[in-house]
Amino acid sequence: MTEQDILKALSNVQEPDLGKDLVTLNMVKDIVIDGNNVSFTIVLTTPACPMKDMMATASTNAVKFLVNKEANVKVNFTSNTTTARGDGQNQLPGVKNIIAVVSGKGGVGKSTVSANLALALAAGGAKVGLMDADIYGPSVPIMFGVRGERPLMKDAGNGKAVIVPLEKFGIKLMSIGLLVDDKNAVVWRGPMASSAIRQFITDVEWGELDYLVIDMPPGTGDIHLTMVQTVPVTGVVVVTTPQAVALADAKKGIAMFGQAQIKVPIIGLVENMAWFTPAELPNNKYYLFGKEGGKNLAEEYELPFLGHIPLVQSIREGGDAGVPALVGNDEISKQAFMEFASKAVRNIAMRNANMAPTAVVQMVE
Amino acid sequence: MTEQDILKALSNVQEPDLGKDLVTLNMVKDIVIDGNNVSFTIVLTTPACPMKDMMATASTNAVKFLVNKEANVKVNFTSNTTTARGDGQNQLPGVKNIIAVVSGKGGVGKSTVSANLALALAAGGAKVGLMDADIYGPSVPIMFGVRGERPLMKDAGNGKAVIVPLEKFGIKLMSIGLLVDDKNAVVWRGPMASSAIRQFITDVEWGELDYLVIDMPPGTGDIHLTMVQTVPVTGVVVVTTPQAVALADAKKGIAMFGQAQIKVPIIGLVENMAWFTPAELPNNKYYLFGKEGGKNLAEEYELPFLGHIPLVQSIREGGDAGVPALVGNDEISKQAFMEFASKAVRNIAMRNANMAPTAVVQMVE
Ligand SMILES: Nc1ncnc2c1ncn2[C@@H]1O[C@H](COP(=O)(O)OP(=O)(O)OP(=O)(O)O)[C@@H](O)[C@H]1O
Ligand SMILES: Nc1ncnc2c1ncn2[C@@H]1O[C@H](COP(=O)(O)OP(=O)(O)OP(=O)(O)O)[C@@H](O)[C@H]1O
Ligand SMILES: [Mg+2]
Ligand SMILES: [Mg+2]
Repeated sequence: MTEQDILKALSNVQEPDLGKDLVTLNMVKDIVIDGNNVSFTIVLTTPACPMKDMMATASTNAVKFLVNKEANVKVNFTSNTTTARGDGQNQLPGVKNIIAVVSGKGGVGKSTVSANLALALAAGGAKVGLMDADIYGPSVPIMFGVRGERPLMKDAGNGKAVIVPLEKFGIKLMSIGLLVDDKNAVVWRGPMASSAIRQFITDVEWGELDYLVIDMPPGTGDIHLTMVQTVPVTGVVVVTTPQAVALADAKKGIAMFGQAQIKVPIIGLVENMAWFTPAELPNNKYYLFGKEGGKNLAEEYELPFLGHIPLVQSIREGGDAGVPALVGNDEISKQAFMEFASKAVRNIAMRNANMAPTAVVQMVE
Repeated sequence: MTEQDILKALSNVQEPDLGKDLVTLNMVKDIVIDGNNVSFTIVLTTPACPMKDMMATASTNAVKFLVNKEANVKVNFTSNTTTARGDGQNQLPGVKNIIAVVSGKGGVGKSTVSANLALALAAGGAKVGLMDADIYGPSVPIMFGVRGERPLMKDAGNGKAVIVPLEKFGIKLMSIGLLVDDKNAVVWRGPMASSAIRQFITDVEWGELDYLVIDMPPGTGDIHLTMVQTVPVTGVVVVTTPQAVALADAKKGIAMFGQAQIKVPIIGLVENMAWFTPAELPNNKYYLFGKEGGKNLAEEYELPFLGHIPLVQSIREGGDAGVPALVGNDEISKQAFMEFASKAVRNIAMRNANMAPTAVVQMVE
């Protein structure tokens, strides 16, 4: 067995999402051959890659069938999260992917989805931050149980002080709720809210991150514009519930990011609060907010559908108690969020492989 | 029997909410006596007064017991909706009460509550308008089934064109969704959204109204400030769902309107989506979003509690289909909204009787 043999065999293994083989994609390194023992490392496009096991099996089989039936194959994994950062983008240089979670309609579950997406990515081994961009109704402090905690400031070295994000469940967190007293209404005109958001980008030490998830406020207003004008957003995840009033607003959000001057790719759409199942009637699904509205919208707009999240009391309870579903005890909701996140992460990798970097939007007023 | 006798008897009948008697409150007129027949008119503080029957009985009894056991008493009702408009307030001169429905948190049911409050007031005989102040996520067009309809313009006489509100189910309606193409995102900076709201006040022919209900967007931002700076808001109705993340935002909304520079009275708080009852298990209440969170908040903040609205699939369906619960077929939801609206309307009358007019806010930035 030579290194050449192994590479030739692995050139028959496809990366399932990117549609090319592992060798062409430059994903194989550290081949070590010792008699019948062979080991190599596959460099994944994301640590949270849900295709890991499949690729391990396919690679092992390729070596055994094409090179040496007796081979003992050991596949190691490492990852180098792909990015679609363009040149000359100075903000958040250490952040590989900026994922904005948007909706149009309020209360559809953006914050819940953001929190659990961040946790699912981190569970896969990625370095993850979560920025709460909802200046008027921040949810991150409650959902992560860090209400009342205050982030520390730190000298950035150049005489400038930066804010160090809080860390909880392995996620770096920032929210206006961690800076402003809980009891006061934040009654700010748009320009002040926008400037708070800019500070979350320029004055917070996010460091090296594979993914920065941004929990956006409802609507399509100032903060959305400021965000796309300040950082290159890799893509947006659209959250909707199934009813018509939510879908109408989701369409507005989709239209906003598709506008010629903005052009941020849509990673996909997730349908939240899809149905309710009482514990006493485990076979009943109550489509309280309508049936498949999100799925149908994804089809209509030809967007990747990222799955259904059912309405589960423990999801709400976890949000209120500071223990998001992904780190909670309910297997049904955990499973739903894991499946959603793994679809999202694959679509992010595909987006990075196939599309041009997002530009920072120059002007849209 | 003399007019004096009747008035003396009626001075023993209390207006239950205002805590004074009908004669002191100047609510009795048109006394006609003909032998044993006596009739008079009680001028209610609102046509939607839920205390009508009680006052009729009490007045009849007062005359019979205190004046003449043989009397045939006929009580007529009319109404002159009270107002707390101050002097020198030029905007919307024909509108007696401006009621803003707010929440803080998105998606808790502001639009649903606004629509059904407007319809309940109109069902009681009041003249009612509904202004959709949600520029980024207008719901009124869908909820009233007038999507795609366009309001007409009209020459106001002074060479200025005004917009004539649409009318549906007896309610005058205005929404950005009736003016801007449905498919386009409204991506406006705050100042443009605020100017749209000002136009909804200055350039729309609202005419004479007992109540103008304003369906506010989520949060505590530009549009809220613009609203209180442009018109004297009689009071706000706070909508919340029971969970902690919603209550936290509701507190922000309450704090905003209570601020020294703003000072708009809170009419009361309504708890929406309080519980779900599957048809198959009519005795089960699933407190999906938590139990009594809104009621407890009202107690904590010493605000009038306006009731629970359960989570009922037909409320959502009615919203999507353009037939709000109050004009739909489901008696449980209709009843819940009627009880809520009658508490709200009483509290508005009490507010008008007991508190100073709201001032237009001069400056809060
Ligand atoms: N699948 C679900 N099952 C049960 N409860 C849920 C689910 N998704 C969200 N919730 C609850 O619904 C409420 C609204 O969700 P969330 O706060 O995430 O929405 P949002 O879109 O971020 O709202 P806003 O527009 O106010 O920011 C929260 O109390 C949350 O815990
Ligand atoms: N009591 C209820 N039972 C069932 N569905 C309800 C109930 N109240 C509201 N809904 C539904 O929940 C969704 C959110 O309600 P609504 O649009 O009124 O909220 P909102 O506070 O106005 O939201 P936004 O912040 O986006 O303006 C709608 O689909 C509505 O039909
Ligand atoms: Mg949120
Ligand atoms: Mg609304």
